[in-house]
Amino acid sequence: MNAHDSSTPAAPADAPVYTDILAAAARIAPHAHATPVLTSRALDELAGCRLHFKCENLQRGGAFKFRGACNAVFSLSDEDAARGIVTQSSGNHGGALALAARLRGARATVVAPHNTPKVKLAAIRAYGADVVFCEPGQASRDEVTAQVLARTGGVLVHPFNDPRVIAGQGTATLELMATAPGLDAVIAPVSGGGLLSGTAIAAQGADPAIAVYGAEPLGARDAHDSLAQGQRITGRVADTVCDGLRAELGTLTFPILRSRVREVLLVDDAQAIAAMRLIWERMKLVVEPSGAVPLAAVLAHRDAFANKSVGLIVSGGNVDLDLAAQWFAAKPS
Amino acid sequence: MNAHDSSTPAAPADAPVYTDILAAAARIAPHAHATPVLTSRALDELAGCRLHFKCENLQRGGAFKFRGACNAVFSLSDEDAARGIVTQSSGNHGGALALAARLRGARATVVAPHNTPKVKLAAIRAYGADVVFCEPGQASRDEVTAQVLARTGGVLVHPFNDPRVIAGQGTATLELMATAPGLDAVIAPVSGGGLLSGTAIAAQGADPAIAVYGAEPLGARDAHDSLAQGQRITGRVADTVCDGLRAELGTLTFPILRSRVREVLLVDDAQAIAAMRLIWERMKLVVEPSGAVPLAAVLAHRDAFANKSVGLIVSGGNVDLDLAAQWFAAKPS
Repeated sequence: MNAHDSSTPAAPADAPVYTDILAAAARIAPHAHATPVLTSRALDELAGCRLHFKCENLQRGGAFKFRGACNAVFSLSDEDAARGIVTQSSGNHGGALALAARLRGARATVVAPHNTPKVKLAAIRAYGADVVFCEPGQASRDEVTAQVLARTGGVLVHPFNDPRVIAGQGTATLELMATAPGLDAVIAPVSGGGLLSGTAIAAQGADPAIAVYGAEPLGARDAHDSLAQGQRITGRVADTVCDGLRAELGTLTFPILRSRVREVLLVDDAQAIAAMRLIWERMKLVVEPSGAVPLAAVLAHRDAFANKSVGLIVSGGNVDLDLAAQWFAAKPS
Repeated sequence: MNAHDSSTPAAPADAPVYTDILAAAARIAPHAHATPVLTSRALDELAGCRLHFKCENLQRGGAFKFRGACNAVFSLSDEDAARGIVTQSSGNHGGALALAARLRGARATVVAPHNTPKVKLAAIRAYGADVVFCEPGQASRDEVTAQVLARTGGVLVHPFNDPRVIAGQGTATLELMATAPGLDAVIAPVSGGGLLSGTAIAAQGADPAIAVYGAEPLGARDAHDSLAQGQRITGRVADTVCDGLRAELGTLTFPILRSRVREVLLVDDAQAIAAMRLIWERMKLVVEPSGAVPLAAVLAHRDAFANKSVGLIVSGGNVDLDLAAQWFAAKPS
């Protein structure tokens, strides 16, 4: 009998391990912010538990993505860096990769869907990277990325299906666990699964008993359904206001999550926007809808977290203020 | 010849001194947040200097006001606390006093102008305090406050003209100076002058050579004009979107500022809103217009700060999101 039955498969051989995350933390330390962990008595009362918000909206580039991009870019050999770096992104990873490449002195090209928010495109270009547009959906992303790689001879830093990127994302949770010891659970948003994979490896490396949850919009529930069905679901078109969470799990992240994540909690867009407004109003932090999904998940699943100490990865704050005003106006406050 | 000529008068005898601020820091430590000091390379580039933002919008109650209120309330004897605490406030001090009183187990009454923002009234009431309305303007505030004191037998904690409050406000700058050593200048918004007085005493206690500036809206420029004319100006009606900065200097704060502040820098409302938007977008922090006035002052007076290291007190984040959306919409982004 195997130690891992079909419901808890082993992680793949190329998955990063805890020491990779420790190495990533040292590698990115000269460049990344150690972001604050903030608390709110008002939100604790509302949620019925003790919440610790890891503020990656205050990270460089406005999102956790800089951690993974920075670790990957500074892991490259000088020869590879000189070839130029290519990635695909709906926004935050693109900006982060562009910034990391600039710090390394390397050229960067970002393949982005044409419906990427203006504010995220502006950030990518402000860091000096080129943007090449594709259609929404993974197939077009992959096709255009392959074309760019062939044309430029560059090296790929995938936004999530890359062990260096996963290890970098896990460094946020290393800091969270050091600042808020004794967490019962940690919740990260899930899109392609890079952040949630790194979160799980870091959290369980520091405390094997901690419960790791994903939080996902109903309109992009491929991770939830993939874990429930035991196979990776691809080819759906996401429909959610959470523009950072529209990707699907990768071949590397799916088995990592399958072996490590207790559950993926679902929230609808109205719950995400309501949680976003709570964080703006009560914590005075600008977060994007994707970054509010973990709080929305706690509020929608109160019983699972009653009286517990819960870490939430507030993944990013890159939101168009005019769009945000429209979202808030669409709901009674 | 006196050591203090008419342009640099001595501070009054009841002005707090540096050791009062150290004592306040110890007194409020169990209750107040040590707020983060954040930086932004993007805003440094824009301003042409190195900015250190002391994030009092992340303070309990959403503003620095909790520091002074907490120090005053916990300085009271048990007998005085039992009489109930009365204050006057256009908002943030009222909420802070209400919260401090609740922590002390004391009753609180807040005299507030009827045009106080909804979000601030809601905070005062959420902390369990009573609200009594007055007309805008200092005369009505003082008259109604006297009535409430006579009716209730309570003790007054004035929002700024109180040495205990001034000492409490100064604790933010103690933390700022410890986190960002080597500042050339520090800038705080000025309304009644409690924050700026505490800021100056703390900053110059730690480093006598530091330059202390106030930042004030053009439509409430009584502090600027009072220092320029050498006498306290009263009785004007403020006209500014910065609802936290509409008070006038007090009999205690005016001489403190006169002896310690290099200059009060003026900005118009459009500059305040533009700076507020910059902080929301680039730093992912929700600040109210009053809290963005120091950044607006740096951007409006770049030459004074070129290449210097400057601390900014981001005084608060209690803003109505719907109002903020209107302000942003009124300006091209």
